[in-house]
Amino acid sequence: MLKLNRPTLERLLLYYHFINVHMDQNDTVTVSSAKLATFMDSDDTQVRKDLAAIGLKGRPRIGFVASEVNSKIRHTLGFDENNRAVVIGAGRLGGAIASYKEFTDYGLEIIALFDNDQQKIGLTVGDHIVQPLNRLAAIVKRRDVHLGILTVPAGAAHEVVDRLVQTGVNTIWNFSPANITPSNGGAVRNEHIAVGLAELLYHLKKTS
Amino acid sequence: MLKLNRPTLERLLLYYHFINVHMDQNDTVTVSSAKLATFMDSDDTQVRKDLAAIGLKGRPRIGFVASEVNSKIRHTLGFDENNRAVVIGAGRLGGAIASYKEFTDYGLEIIALFDNDQQKIGLTVGDHIVQPLNRLAAIVKRRDVHLGILTVPAGAAHEVVDRLVQTGVNTIWNFSPANITPSNGGAVRNEHIAVGLAELLYHLKKTS
Repeated sequence: MLKLNRPTLERLLLYYHFINVHMDQNDTVTVSSAKLATFMDSDDTQVRKDLAAIGLKGRPRIGFVASEVNSKIRHTLGFDENNRAVVIGAGRLGGAIASYKEFTDYGLEIIALFDNDQQKIGLTVGDHIVQPLNRLAAIVKRRDVHLGILTVPAGAAHEVVDRLVQTGVNTIWNFSPANITPSNGGAVRNEHIAVGLAELLYHLKKTS
Repeated sequence: MLKLNRPTLERLLLYYHFINVHMDQNDTVTVSSAKLATFMDSDDTQVRKDLAAIGLKGRPRIGFVASEVNSKIRHTLGFDENNRAVVIGAGRLGGAIASYKEFTDYGLEIIALFDNDQQKIGLTVGDHIVQPLNRLAAIVKRRDVHLGILTVPAGAAHEVVDRLVQTGVNTIWNFSPANITPSNGGAVRNEHIAVGLAELLYHLKKTS
């Protein structure tokens, strides 16, 4: 299986976005490496190298068929599989994520939203009824869930991760401010949204 | 003015989180570099180096006064200033961000939420009434706003950025999938949340 490093993955994803947003998806629409490079503020050699890495070769003066680029990226990154996820933490962010329609572009299906707050259980948030956390294991098993999305407060994060790992979900997308480390064979992406904010505030402080 | 690189900034922010979440903020509570290192899955030499970079020196066998570490990080990163921001895009994510209480920990005050969708203008989302985009310039000027937070669809992003830059806001926190590049003297943080998702799905594909 192809092994892509993170910067390459990131660039492939941006090509995918660009084509999805700006181009019709039929066989006659082509996109040049130069056009993708302009969008990325990069150079076309880089674009061609990235696309060659997933087996795509452009044609001189024509470029790439846009829909082929996208379907190849989809397939390489696993977006054409059915990836089922649960969201834990039914606050505003959890609700936004659980209802985010664009995730279907990535083959991601959010099948349930959990919380342990009695005030929230049973409420409808987007397309989901908030479920009590003690139903997590049963639902994960029945629906073959592989990804857990964490939108709980930092203090609750580690306990929830333990529960997920116990049920066999060790791929975790963490939006809580806690620092989660992967379990054996698992993968974690800590979003730490505040890092982005801190960078910008630091910039403002330096320039003010 | 102190110049910190991004990984250092990121680690400082995680120390700040850890102390905020797990420790009382009074003069008698201390934290060792070893404890912070354990939380970070790092080593204590790194922690001491980071804290030394912002002028903090621990005491042998005692460590650092937790509240001093936090106030120093706050000051260094600009969290103790009043940073006013506007959110543009009153969808679910925009609503979640505009109502996120923890931003006050960073000195961030979101003063208005905008959209150009007539169906949304006038609605109350969290603490905000959604304003029409044509009021942006007036509000930014009157309230001395320096940060713009983008939660619009990719197709609308560049136009909104142009409007922000015209009103003098060139520090932009971009949650749309568009790729925004900084204007002269400006700073942009592209969150590209889907990058994290793509990484995890790629991991699932490799291990399945």
